[in-house]
Amino acid sequence: MNTLGHIFTLTTFGESHGPAIGGVIDGCPSNLKIDFQLIEEELNRRKTAQSATASQRHETDQVEWLSGLLDGVTLGTPIAFIVRNEDCKSKDYELLKDVYRPSHADYAYDQKYGIRDWRGGGRASARTTLPLVVAGAIAKQILQGKGISVSSEVFSMGDAEQARMAGDSVGGVVKGTIKGVPAGLGEPMFGKYSAELAHAMFCLPAVKGFEIGDGFALAEMKGSEANDLFVNKNGRICTATNHSGGIQGGISNGEDITFKVAFKPIPSIAQTQQTVNRAGEKCEIAVGGRHDVCALPRALVLVEAMAALVTVDLIQL
Amino acid sequence: MNTLGHIFTLTTFGESHGPAIGGVIDGCPSNLKIDFQLIEEELNRRKTAQSATASQRHETDQVEWLSGLLDGVTLGTPIAFIVRNEDCKSKDYELLKDVYRPSHADYAYDQKYGIRDWRGGGRASARTTLPLVVAGAIAKQILQGKGISVSSEVFSMGDAEQARMAGDSVGGVVKGTIKGVPAGLGEPMFGKYSAELAHAMFCLPAVKGFEIGDGFALAEMKGSEANDLFVNKNGRICTATNHSGGIQGGISNGEDITFKVAFKPIPSIAQTQQTVNRAGEKCEIAVGGRHDVCALPRALVLVEAMAALVTVDLIQL
Amino acid sequence: MNTLGHIFTLTTFGESHGPAIGGVIDGCPSNLKIDFQLIEEELNRRKTAQSATASQRHETDQVEWLSGLLDGVTLGTPIAFIVRNEDCKSKDYELLKDVYRPSHADYAYDQKYGIRDWRGGGRASARTTLPLVVAGAIAKQILQGKGISVSSEVFSMGDAEQARMAGDSVGGVVKGTIKGVPAGLGEPMFGKYSAELAHAMFCLPAVKGFEIGDGFALAEMKGSEANDLFVNKNGRICTATNHSGGIQGGISNGEDITFKVAFKPIPSIAQTQQTVNRAGEKCEIAVGGRHDVCALPRALVLVEAMAALVTVDLIQL
Amino acid sequence: MNTLGHIFTLTTFGESHGPAIGGVIDGCPSNLKIDFQLIEEELNRRKTAQSATASQRHETDQVEWLSGLLDGVTLGTPIAFIVRNEDCKSKDYELLKDVYRPSHADYAYDQKYGIRDWRGGGRASARTTLPLVVAGAIAKQILQGKGISVSSEVFSMGDAEQARMAGDSVGGVVKGTIKGVPAGLGEPMFGKYSAELAHAMFCLPAVKGFEIGDGFALAEMKGSEANDLFVNKNGRICTATNHSGGIQGGISNGEDITFKVAFKPIPSIAQTQQTVNRAGEKCEIAVGGRHDVCALPRALVLVEAMAALVTVDLIQL
Repeated sequence: MNTLGHIFTLTTFGESHGPAIGGVIDGCPSNLKIDFQLIEEELNRRKTAQSATASQRHETDQVEWLSGLLDGVTLGTPIAFIVRNEDCKSKDYELLKDVYRPSHADYAYDQKYGIRDWRGGGRASARTTLPLVVAGAIAKQILQGKGISVSSEVFSMGDAEQARMAGDSVGGVVKGTIKGVPAGLGEPMFGKYSAELAHAMFCLPAVKGFEIGDGFALAEMKGSEANDLFVNKNGRICTATNHSGGIQGGISNGEDITFKVAFKPIPSIAQTQQTVNRAGEKCEIAVGGRHDVCALPRALVLVEAMAALVTVDLIQL
Repeated sequence: MNTLGHIFTLTTFGESHGPAIGGVIDGCPSNLKIDFQLIEEELNRRKTAQSATASQRHETDQVEWLSGLLDGVTLGTPIAFIVRNEDCKSKDYELLKDVYRPSHADYAYDQKYGIRDWRGGGRASARTTLPLVVAGAIAKQILQGKGISVSSEVFSMGDAEQARMAGDSVGGVVKGTIKGVPAGLGEPMFGKYSAELAHAMFCLPAVKGFEIGDGFALAEMKGSEANDLFVNKNGRICTATNHSGGIQGGISNGEDITFKVAFKPIPSIAQTQQTVNRAGEKCEIAVGGRHDVCALPRALVLVEAMAALVTVDLIQL
Repeated sequence: MNTLGHIFTLTTFGESHGPAIGGVIDGCPSNLKIDFQLIEEELNRRKTAQSATASQRHETDQVEWLSGLLDGVTLGTPIAFIVRNEDCKSKDYELLKDVYRPSHADYAYDQKYGIRDWRGGGRASARTTLPLVVAGAIAKQILQGKGISVSSEVFSMGDAEQARMAGDSVGGVVKGTIKGVPAGLGEPMFGKYSAELAHAMFCLPAVKGFEIGDGFALAEMKGSEANDLFVNKNGRICTATNHSGGIQGGISNGEDITFKVAFKPIPSIAQTQQTVNRAGEKCEIAVGGRHDVCALPRALVLVEAMAALVTVDLIQL
Repeated sequence: MNTLGHIFTLTTFGESHGPAIGGVIDGCPSNLKIDFQLIEEELNRRKTAQSATASQRHETDQVEWLSGLLDGVTLGTPIAFIVRNEDCKSKDYELLKDVYRPSHADYAYDQKYGIRDWRGGGRASARTTLPLVVAGAIAKQILQGKGISVSSEVFSMGDAEQARMAGDSVGGVVKGTIKGVPAGLGEPMFGKYSAELAHAMFCLPAVKGFEIGDGFALAEMKGSEANDLFVNKNGRICTATNHSGGIQGGISNGEDITFKVAFKPIPSIAQTQQTVNRAGEKCEIAVGGRHDVCALPRALVLVEAMAALVTVDLIQL
């Protein structure tokens, strides 16, 4: 269950303050000259300590390639890579060892596994999204070669500067677009493009909502408003509008794939909150450590990575 | 890609006007005495021609059990079942054979497969959701035995009667609730409870949005508002609020699982619409046949079925 | 676990004396005109009551196609089919209800499931191989289109006529050959062509051994004897010998794929044997019913079907 | 296709002379205190340069644990580990860069991927079995806790010392035994214990044959000889003989699981052999480098590892 995809697959591993995090990509075509520059750029988009919204953890995030490449060219065999965890201040978390942080996964992990890596959030840390970015960059490169591009933007976001000052955090919505997808991508019944995207986005930390095209707004429209009429534009069948977000019956129709992803506010806040500890005793918590005020705009590259991974996988099916 | 689930799996098959539709359930525990009454009741909730919103297709929907049972008790082997398609008026569709109905899957299927069963929507028809209801009822029965219940309600819906008169259709939002789920269900990284639910719901026809707990509304909150504080209620650790919808870090935390599913309006409307045919020529269409005005409230049982299937599968992992 | 394959998959269901047995093929390419004649011929090769070695159960084995086809052409959607069980003499088995037949799966099933369909062997019956033949015939047809053929022959077999008279049974070895496979088929590390074939063959009832090329005999050779030297035959690289059976490092090398499958004797024999019943009490058994004396030559078509299914699946990966 | 198993899974990666080889274990139960001593012992059984039959490559084979553990205890999250490749003498292979070694995977890889890591056999090297041993040792530890043990022995082997002197190599047969397996393990139809074992063993390099119980010899017996009669031994139902190797109908029956695995001779031999190069030109080859004369006895620990991995996986299903 730590593997994403069917043919082009990504298996990830790692805890926030463990020795390393990483991933194994299987099913990548051979003879692809990896664009390491692109990977680095994507990692920089994700990296912390860049802006007013991001945490103060400093990591070099140097990717070490372990397999699957010969002189930077893919062999068709599994591509394994790791990134060392260097700037671990586990001591920051020692006080939290037995305390359940509100709206974090601490309690759920304890209940599930009976053990939990309490240092920096362990496996539930946002740091574990790093391998997604690496694999996503490779997926983007493959898509580029097919004329497909993935982009995203902040659609809405709370007031981050004000929240930081108040020891609080904010959420936001990311809008994603996939351009150049040919009609016919997606597999009914249970491999629908929309379903695969929804699944992938909900694998990202803090995601609580996902919609395709006009999404929830469609539920308030009439059919006559919502329907995308087919037209012939210079010999190409397309739709006059794109309320459907490029997907009908779970299959791409050749229009832009558009979607939105809702991120809840970062649950770690500096304000004092009531909670309980492992023994069920009441206690207070004011989360120190180094945390983002908002998952956005760092989440942009994550959303794009997931969209790219899903799309590459469906293309190979 | 016509199989849902990992351990408790459902494979479905069938086209709207083909000989039969059906499914194969694999991984069902042995020695379960099937509650055929419950299955029939669930099928009745789905059946057409019951209300102002539903289409006029009349099917007896008699389930024929082919395997996996001995005197109504599960053997642990695959449970196959079919339902014959009887009331097929394929002639209704003959005019549509070469016409792309707006916001339907016709065009996408043609692009994907180069062939399409144009009779009644073929594999993309809502009739193909019937096997989900049968399997969902069995899943519900298993969950019942574990003290878990799944329910749903219409959260919002357009004015169906007005739309019918106007030859139009409406969409709506279904709210679902799963009660009694123990803490610890769901598999990080890519088998999160939320991700599995999102995937399953987007496999239903006409679904365009999904959210867990407060969903998109969370994106507009501050962390201090959105966080669910842990409290000790009579020796049991739980949360004072449930903005998270019972899932944190992708894992259930013991609270009710709550979610919403957005359905677009039924794309088949009686009003005349512009479209193109297979040759790309402009034409007009006014969809006859027998169609719902709204996917709700028939979708309630589908949403519950998917929630039950996902939950049973995660419990067995 | 009742699904075979990765992309071109077959899910089977059914018990020997249940209402029907059948299968669902997913991942079959669209626009294939099914050769029903070939399927019937293959089923006839499998059918009982043909020869001195086979049982006396008479089934018409009429395939009923339920989905995935339009006018006999594949739609790309799941192809479901069933065959009714007609000539069930369950009474023959009533005496065996609580008795564990030697070297049958009765006891193992009881231990696994706590329940067992005792009528005709239930899910463990050789009748459950019928769907393999149907799917295998479709796989063969796809392979034919690519210049690949699958054949088999009886390599060795005990004296069936003598055994029948003695109320006994015999085993045998089937030799299989796949011709026309291009070099490069098979997926290291765990999707090796040889491993997939071995897996598939051991899914057949009564199979106890499998070898590729010279197999066990290779274990007694020296490298200088066993190695297949590469030569250039009219511009085509091939090997001078084929001890490897066309597979090196788990990947096809362009030579004929050759393999052998060992079948144990049919465990149902007319001779009186000692055994125990469900209560662990000593008892005697002389298996009546209608049974083969040897799994061969009926197994030929099964071996070919499995080889074809594996090969089609690997080609689509 | 570089992932083995269904629930307890192992994903491996790495080329012989790449930076590292390694694996990711997913689905391992939490709260297991890893027995690192056992892992080291198992790795020593596999390590080269120990005996007359083994190659002269010297590796420390130090396992580096990257994730999934806290103070040596499993977290329930993926356990990733790597071993660096240190003693790489890639120059030994430079002459072989364009030459197809007889009965090696060189040609097949080139045909499949259009590129090949020629250094030390790349992904097809026996070195890539190292992660199997690590994961197998963990599987063994889990089985130990359930009273299940896996062992193996050399059943037959050519004269290694004589072969070394002659610049030749030999093959052999390994016999494996799994004791303590409860009745009821294995999943019909396509997850039979025998089929899973066969698949796993054929994933090992140089394996060309596999049989369960008496295997190919059963094909020459009569039913009356081959059948394992059930008896009641002190209140426990068991079989008087074990020709079946503990598996009937694909499911364990409580007896010892016994099987044999045939290994072909190591194809790398010092004798001069005819072959062709990439251009199809005739050439000669006398394989230098550091190679085993026989895959046995190093293969013992590999066979046991695969048997343990398959068994742990089936137990968790």
